[in-house]
Amino acid sequence: MRCGLGKVKVSFPSLVLPVSLVGADVSGKPNFEAIAWFTFLGSKPILIGVCSDKSHHTNLGVRENRTFSVNIPRAELVVETDYCGLNSGAKVDKSEVFDVFYGDLKTAPMIRECHVNMECKLVQTLEFENNELFVGEVVASYVDEECLSGGKCNVEKVDPFLYEEGRIPPGYWRLGEPLATAFKIGTEYKPGSKRNR
Amino acid sequence: MRCGLGKVKVSFPSLVLPVSLVGADVSGKPNFEAIAWFTFLGSKPILIGVCSDKSHHTNLGVRENRTFSVNIPRAELVVETDYCGLNSGAKVDKSEVFDVFYGDLKTAPMIRECHVNMECKLVQTLEFENNELFVGEVVASYVDEECLSGGKCNVEKVDPFLYEEGRIPPGYWRLGEPLATAFKIGTEYKPGSKRNR
Repeated sequence: MRCGLGKVKVSFPSLVLPVSLVGADVSGKPNFEAIAWFTFLGSKPILIGVCSDKSHHTNLGVRENRTFSVNIPRAELVVETDYCGLNSGAKVDKSEVFDVFYGDLKTAPMIRECHVNMECKLVQTLEFENNELFVGEVVASYVDEECLSGGKCNVEKVDPFLYEEGRIPPGYWRLGEPLATAFKIGTEYKPGSKRNR
Repeated sequence: MRCGLGKVKVSFPSLVLPVSLVGADVSGKPNFEAIAWFTFLGSKPILIGVCSDKSHHTNLGVRENRTFSVNIPRAELVVETDYCGLNSGAKVDKSEVFDVFYGDLKTAPMIRECHVNMECKLVQTLEFENNELFVGEVVASYVDEECLSGGKCNVEKVDPFLYEEGRIPPGYWRLGEPLATAFKIGTEYKPGSKRNR
């Protein structure tokens, strides 16, 4: 529906969100699901919220152990990641897709092939219609040594990819080039200098 | 700290998250803040969660009107976006940075210069340490006509950008190239074909 201003109302706009693999042990076996609906909810302590359909197999393990992991797959793992999104752990055994390791919590399975891993202790579960939001405290974060530059994690080496929400069929996208330094480029703003649309 | 497996424990790993400008009318004046901590929480109805520091000026308006907007700035707007992240509406007037329009809710200011806009009715507020998570029902989504291809929103034309969380100083990144079709590429997975790390 057109609504003036050159804008059109749509049922859902196209947005990109980062892709993660959320892991949990379900009845003692590691399971992973592909999740793009997650974000941070705090920094002291680090809190992460992961939104997952209540019917999903991984949710059983999060409820069972009150632990989960968030792993950031690199672009090369797009086939495995999408496989984990296409197939329920109720029907296929996903424990063999990746090399699994455990950290301090002992029950949050993490993926060696992902350059970034976070292990989380469940602190709260919130319900929204068909989904539940698992709020986890990140008790430890792991990065592959090869992704560090000068002791800092280098996102180009982590090579995450993104999920395009809203397109049919949805797509995965690579990360592009650096654009600017945050909390700095904004000092170049000149009041009164509105851009053309 | 090294922990074997070629992995290192870090205080916070480097992740990319999409950038939004969240809008609210504060005492009748539009205000915008740059937010990368947001995600979807449901699709029927569409629910979006926006996590904002309790002390932020925009929060006042969300609480006041129980409405807010989520706008997706294009890469060209990185200066204005970062300006909105650097400066509190308590100190500077951000109502003149963009052309503002209103939709069905009347009190959720949206940004014409952003190709994608969502207006949201606050349905729940959750508290986490220093932050609050505003859960909004997306009552309408708007896309610039020029971003539609065959009636669908084209993310390349939306040209969103990303925020790198965890690096000091944090950076903004462009979206890259298409990688694969979601819910399809995973059918190419061959069980037993673990990749090398």
